[in-house]
Amino acid sequence: MPNNQATACAYSNIAFIKYWGNRDHALRLPANPSLSMNLGGLFTRTTVRFSADLTADRALVDDQAMQGNSLARISAHLDYARRLAGSALSAEVISHNNFPAGAGIASSASAFAALSLAAAAALDLKLTEAELSAYARRGSGSAARSVPNGFVVWHMGTDHASSYAESIAPAEHWQLTDLVAIISTEHKATGSTEGHQLADSSPLQAARVATAPARFEDCVQAVLARDFERLARVVEHDSDMMHAVMQTSTPPLLYWLPPTVAIMRRVRQLRAEGVGVCYTIDAGANVHCICLPNALERVRAELHAISGVLEVRAAQVGGAAWLEG
Amino acid sequence: MPNNQATACAYSNIAFIKYWGNRDHALRLPANPSLSMNLGGLFTRTTVRFSADLTADRALVDDQAMQGNSLARISAHLDYARRLAGSALSAEVISHNNFPAGAGIASSASAFAALSLAAAAALDLKLTEAELSAYARRGSGSAARSVPNGFVVWHMGTDHASSYAESIAPAEHWQLTDLVAIISTEHKATGSTEGHQLADSSPLQAARVATAPARFEDCVQAVLARDFERLARVVEHDSDMMHAVMQTSTPPLLYWLPPTVAIMRRVRQLRAEGVGVCYTIDAGANVHCICLPNALERVRAELHAISGVLEVRAAQVGGAAWLEG
Repeated sequence: MPNNQATACAYSNIAFIKYWGNRDHALRLPANPSLSMNLGGLFTRTTVRFSADLTADRALVDDQAMQGNSLARISAHLDYARRLAGSALSAEVISHNNFPAGAGIASSASAFAALSLAAAAALDLKLTEAELSAYARRGSGSAARSVPNGFVVWHMGTDHASSYAESIAPAEHWQLTDLVAIISTEHKATGSTEGHQLADSSPLQAARVATAPARFEDCVQAVLARDFERLARVVEHDSDMMHAVMQTSTPPLLYWLPPTVAIMRRVRQLRAEGVGVCYTIDAGANVHCICLPNALERVRAELHAISGVLEVRAAQVGGAAWLEG
Repeated sequence: MPNNQATACAYSNIAFIKYWGNRDHALRLPANPSLSMNLGGLFTRTTVRFSADLTADRALVDDQAMQGNSLARISAHLDYARRLAGSALSAEVISHNNFPAGAGIASSASAFAALSLAAAAALDLKLTEAELSAYARRGSGSAARSVPNGFVVWHMGTDHASSYAESIAPAEHWQLTDLVAIISTEHKATGSTEGHQLADSSPLQAARVATAPARFEDCVQAVLARDFERLARVVEHDSDMMHAVMQTSTPPLLYWLPPTVAIMRRVRQLRAEGVGVCYTIDAGANVHCICLPNALERVRAELHAISGVLEVRAAQVGGAAWLEG
């Protein structure tokens, strides 16, 4: 336990098959399996230091001191590692995202993956990658997918230990790029944790969940075979299925803004013209445009030409979470 | 049979509970019951003349001669009345819409309602309103709802005779206005007849259909009680449910344009501020904003202020289809 301190980094990820809704909210056991690619270059770097000098947990995220629910969520996450290690030490957490908040990149996935890896290392827990992934899941479901390398599947599982993510192909397997069209930097009105709890209020969620395993298998095969047309169809369809559920929940969650629809339409037109691009949209207005290498510059130019697009950010496929130092 | 000729008029209608998908495509027996209000002032006027002088059916719609499939659909519709009357006479159909094509108002509902009423009268068929409505349904499902007065329910039924519409309240019952925000005058890429056939390709259609009767009952009660808040919630939710199915069918039908989403969001904001308005969207990009009388001028001004809104057209609740002369 060198200094009871460790620093870890983890990439954000974008889901090709979406996670929306839980079968167990407390454990964040998802309603369906999901699949994602890590977003290379867009990461959270987190240092955790356990010390007898501290009287309570404290956390700085992007130089801001966490309080209330935000701090409680981090403390609760550290508790799990402390229980495993038999430790009662308080911790200091210092975390930085190398991408701006509100830039359309989910930070909770990379944040809880990095926090889990750093906390486990600081307490000298010898966790397997699957155990780390399951641990990260407890903090934020999609964080489970930011632990392994490249293209990642999250097995829904039936309990804590069986609900973890693993790589189906490393980052080098397929040179895809996510061009994130940023059209809103507003904080979302409904956060993901709350959103997952609304999923079952939609009359359509059961049908989405029932058909998700088939989309998941289709997407696994598309990734393994590097079949972009197949990938594009299932990725867009699965995104549309999630937003169908969101938009029909009570209260309805309409995350799209006018430029969101403009981009969806443009991306479909481009693909019909033979350009290797498809869209996927998370719980927000920004659009992730997954591109083949030869489509990249064309798509970037097209996105910049759409009214309401503030910025376009590029990410290639990222690797696994890693320890520093 | 004075001259074997008759002229009839019928209003268009806007569905509060949507019709999307059939249990029998040939008979246009719908997958779920629906509810609409007629759109006063927006009507089709149709003259049908059967004559031994004609060697084949012919039809002029807004001064344009129908050919091919369009003419065949009209002829097939007339065949039903001819069979009932034991007539073999060909017919001349002259039809005018008093609203421009592509103005965001469905014309097939008013057109087939007027055609049915005129054809039945020209052949001196003594049909009840329910029989006329069922007849109109064979030409275009929503035409069944343009036959009765005011606020209309279409019973899905189990065969031709039992699938008809009837009024639950006359036009005078509730002074609502439909402000149609017109944002596209393009002809739709996928027509309704084809769209209905795609409904079952969505994994969400079965759940939409299964829950439609409860929304239908809720909407009936909201109309009867003139409960606008209740109406607004169920009308928007039902519209969202239909578009969820459309957007997840294969191929996906994304009818919305960027201003569609801008209007949906603005309407919801306005209602949260206490303005009596809700939206509903058919198989197109235009948005029907159903307003209470005291909300009308505010909503009209707000719609004109939204980028992409070309025109705003108003319709009050309309009465039943009627014979002229």
